[in-house]
This record gives sequence, C-alpha cells and structure tokens, in this order.
Amino acid sequence: VRIALDAMGTDNAPSAEVAGAIGALQELESDIEIVLVGDSAVIESAIADHPAAPAGRLLVHHASERVTAADAPASVIRRKPDSSIAVGLRLVRSGEADAFISAGSTGAVMATSLFTLRPLPGVARPAIGTVLPTAANPCLMLDAGANVDCKPHQLVQFAHLGHIYAQDLMGVERPRVGLLNIGEEPEKGDELTLETHRLLSQAHGLNFVGNVEGRDIIRGMCDVLVCDGFVGSVLLKFYESVAHFIIGFMRRELRQVEEDLDLERIFRVLDYEEYGGAPLLGVGGVTIICHGESSPFAIRNAVAVAARAVRSNMVRHIAREISIADPPEEAS
Amino acid sequence: VRIALDAMGTDNAPSAEVAGAIGALQELESDIEIVLVGDSAVIESAIADHPAAPAGRLLVHHASERVTAADAPASVIRRKPDSSIAVGLRLVRSGEADAFISAGSTGAVMATSLFTLRPLPGVARPAIGTVLPTAANPCLMLDAGANVDCKPHQLVQFAHLGHIYAQDLMGVERPRVGLLNIGEEPEKGDELTLETHRLLSQAHGLNFVGNVEGRDIIRGMCDVLVCDGFVGSVLLKFYESVAHFIIGFMRRELRQVEEDLDLERIFRVLDYEEYGGAPLLGVGGVTIICHGESSPFAIRNAVAVAARAVRSNMVRHIAREISIADPPEEAS
Repeated sequence: VRIALDAMGTDNAPSAEVAGAIGALQELESDIEIVLVGDSAVIESAIADHPAAPAGRLLVHHASERVTAADAPASVIRRKPDSSIAVGLRLVRSGEADAFISAGSTGAVMATSLFTLRPLPGVARPAIGTVLPTAANPCLMLDAGANVDCKPHQLVQFAHLGHIYAQDLMGVERPRVGLLNIGEEPEKGDELTLETHRLLSQAHGLNFVGNVEGRDIIRGMCDVLVCDGFVGSVLLKFYESVAHFIIGFMRRELRQVEEDLDLERIFRVLDYEEYGGAPLLGVGGVTIICHGESSPFAIRNAVAVAARAVRSNMVRHIAREISIADPPEEAS
Repeated sequence: VRIALDAMGTDNAPSAEVAGAIGALQELESDIEIVLVGDSAVIESAIADHPAAPAGRLLVHHASERVTAADAPASVIRRKPDSSIAVGLRLVRSGEADAFISAGSTGAVMATSLFTLRPLPGVARPAIGTVLPTAANPCLMLDAGANVDCKPHQLVQFAHLGHIYAQDLMGVERPRVGLLNIGEEPEKGDELTLETHRLLSQAHGLNFVGNVEGRDIIRGMCDVLVCDGFVGSVLLKFYESVAHFIIGFMRRELRQVEEDLDLERIFRVLDYEEYGGAPLLGVGGVTIICHGESSPFAIRNAVAVAARAVRSNMVRHIAREISIADPPEEAS
C-alpha cells in the first residue's frame, strides 16, 4: 500500500507530516509506503531531524507550489497546477499511489479531488465523512462540510456512502443509519429532512433507524449519521470547541490534583484525532482530509485510515453499490 | 409583576413547578406574584408539602386539561381549549398576568402563544431565544427551534428581536450580532446565510459582527447568534448532551477525588438552567418556554427572566423597534 501524503498542509508543515509519516511507518503494517509530496528540499531537511526514519519506505515527490488559505478552491487547479495537492492526487490517478492524504485547505482538496479523480459514476455529490466519538460506538457523520443546500436524494446517497464506509473501515456489518433531525417522529423536520426520511424509509440495502436528534448523537444511537453539509460543519466545529473548552476548564479546576488523574485518557476518549482524517467519499480514489491543526499523531492515524480504505477496496465497493442503489430522482 | 406559571408542564409536574415558584417568591423581588395554572386539587396538594410557602403571593388558577407529548401542537388549541397552556396565556391576554412560563410541549406553547397573543405587527415569525453559556459572556441563540426553512428576511428579523432581548434582559448596550455560518468570510455559506449576510450588513440599528463559525460560539464572539431553527435546535440539544456526557464521564473518572472538587461549580458554569427558560420573541406578550426536564431551580430562574422581561417593557420595545426596522422583503 503506497500512500501519497501532502507534506505542505498542516499549520506546522512539513514537520507534523514528516513526524506522522514516520510514526505510521514504525507502528503500522510493514507493507505501507509513504510518498511525501511538496517542496523536496524542505521535506528532506525535516526528515533529517529524524535519524531513525525507516529508509526505503519513506519517499519524497517534489511539488513546486503550495496551496494557502488565500487560494480560492475553485481556481486553485488552474492557478497552481503543481501544488502538492494536485501532484499528490495525480499520483493516485496514475496508479503511482493508492490513496491521498492532505491537511491543506478542505475546499481545495475537495475541488482538486473531484477534478482529478472524478466522482464515481452515479454519485451526485461526494461527501466528507467524519467519525465522531460517542459514549458507545464511534459514529460516522456525513456530510461534514463538502456540500450545502443538499437535496433529499443526495442525502440518501450519503447514507449509502456512509453505509459502505462503516462496513469496510469501521467493521460494522449492518450499520445503523440515522437522519439528523429536530424530532424523532417521521413527521418532524424541515422540507429537506421530511422528504429524506420518506426516501430513506423506502431505500433498499440500508438499515435505516429513523430520525436522530442532536441529543442522541453522543449516545451512539447510530453508526452513520446523515445530514446536510451546513449542519454537519457547524456541529463538528462546535463539538471540537466544546470538548476543548470543557476539558480546558476542568484542567484548570483540577490543577492541584492533576498528578492523580489520567487526563490523557480523558482526552483520548474525546479526541477525534484517534480516528484519523475524514474520507472524501464518492470520488474515484481514496482521499483523506485532515485538519490544518493536525498533530503528528493525527497524521499517523490518517495513514492507518487510508491504508484500511485501500485494503478493503472501498472505492470499488462504493462504485459497485452505488450503481445498484436507488437511482437519484433528479440529476444534479 | 404577576406571572402565570403552567404547573402541568415538567416531567415532575406539578412538584417541580411548585418548588420553583416558592423558591422564586422567597429569593426574588417581593413584588412578584405567581399564578400556578393547572389542576387545582393536585397543585394545592403539592403546595401543602411546603409549610413555608409565602402566603398571598402564590395563587392557583384552575385549568381542567393538560397537554401531553401526544397532542399535535397545531390542533391542541381546538382540542384542549381548557389546557393549562391555553388558560395561562389567556390570563396574559386579559391582563390578569404579565407573563407566561411553561415547561410543556414547545410546539403547543408556541402555537397557543401565536393564537392567543398574536405576533406583533410586522413580525413574520416569532422566534425562540436560548441563552448559551460560553467561555466569556452568555450568548442568545435564536431561533432555537420554533421555525424551520427560514427565509433571509426572517433571520434578519431574528437579529432585531435578539438585539432587543440582549439590551433589555442581558444588559448589553450594543449587542454584537453574529450569523452562524460555515466560514468567516462573507462569501461562505449556503443560499440562506449568503443572502442573510448581505441583508445584515446593510441593516440599520444592528451591530453586525459577521459570520460566526461553530467553533467560535463557545468563545463568546457575539451576544446574539442568528440561525435557522433547524440548526439551532440540533445545536442546542447536542450542546446539552455533550456537556452532560463529558461531565458524567469526568465524574466517574474523578470518583476517588470527588470530595476535593467543587463539581457543582463546574456544573453551574455549563448549566444553561442558570439562565432560566427560553423566551418566545415576537408575540404580543411575555412567554417563557422551559424544558420538560426542568428542575425547581430552572423554574425559579424562568420566573426571574419573566419578571425582568416585564419590568423592561420588552414587548413594547420590540413592537416599537420592529416597526422602524428594515421592512421584510416579502410577506410570510
């Protein structure tokens, strides 16, 4: 399994990427190779800081340009054709790599993935999935920010995409699919969720468990949670900030007894970094999107997720399933 | 100040209401009177459990019917005309009470308030405001669940309603109004927030601070946060559940050192019950909506909020301001 890793994406690029890649190579399966994509001089210098870097399995592929937050996602492919994002995704398209990971601009990774890998046939809109920690099982929420103003049939397709991801990568045989809504009853919701509920109730091959309220997410009521990307993005960012706020608050409160407590363990439970990056589901290749604030540990886990997606043939699985799932009611 | 309090609303009705009312009478200003509305025999019996109940200022008004979760909000006025909700709101309409508080079905309180008190002239859709605790100042989020599929001009009106509430009840002279969105830049968002941002930027009399992302809510970036009721409802329920989950988790972790910690203080910071119920803004009277799970403490604080709304002439203030604010672009 060879994974192209954008080395220029995090706020601490490339050192977080290099450290994460080395961690992944040391701890994950030995057939994994990582291609760091970006400014090769800078990357080589960062690698030199790690004397124990596994030789042979850590490669560097030069890309002369770097996407920044100032670059508009829609025009970045045209304006920076040699960006680490574009080069890394072309490695996947040409078969030189099996998966792509980036902590750069989500919009740019999304747009360049669509352009380079194309949506799978039948997929109206690829979606970003994010695994949320809950009190029980982890829950894949999608869309977590790729698409706004979604139509009902697109949400149904997100359900199918999430179903396959949960099967292939989370090891859930018959994933419970929930629809994020403002009430449990089928007649609750806005125009989008009312119609989506009706379509999901009739969808073949899905274990649809009905509406899931905001308060039920943390209880782990479902394995896959479907929502519009606006709601998903707001909720995800809110969750991260609330968890950090509460933990920070308690850390201050608890300073005097800190030695007695395994605060790191508490962090781990709430830390979505455990689950690696967020997959872009529905394009013709494996793309994993990470936070700009990703730590080396988060990068390492993104490599694990990417490798699992490659091994399970997730993309082929999605391509096959989407073609036999309910056809969309309207083209998009 | 005389406040009608639905005694049949909470899961522990009427004992939570009675205990909360007595707490309010004992601790708040001495000119407050409370009229408990509901089954008078049951209420009198609950009052008898409190030998120290302040005589004279705690009144009972009989209502023969009780709204349950099974009652459809839209038809509850017709089907249960003598419900504690309908009777309490009629007390406000007739001037026998200055404000109404209920922990019953939100939909029923909303629908009956609209029917009985009418929307204020010029108000397209009344909104429910909820005060969220943040790391800094409290933040009024609206709409928190009354309306879905909102139009841009309705969100602008929510901004005006929230502006007045923050002035009159939260003591903020020039409230910072934010628009909940998926990015800070004006060009980020879905159809609704893009157009709402444009309108808010031009609105008179508002201190619009721009888009607020999910992660910025907890940082206290604004005093008033405007959003569609679908997003507001999901976010609010999620927040409550996450806070409870994290605190419960840490409480278990900390069992052995619990005596040393002021966990109650931590609860207080995160407890939106501190802020009392959620006002229904835009109708012709003061209506406060509480949770079905409200404790006596939450009921007591809802009384404090209601009394403050009455004293500040909030409804008259809203009626005046709405008539001079930007007229809606379309009738609704």
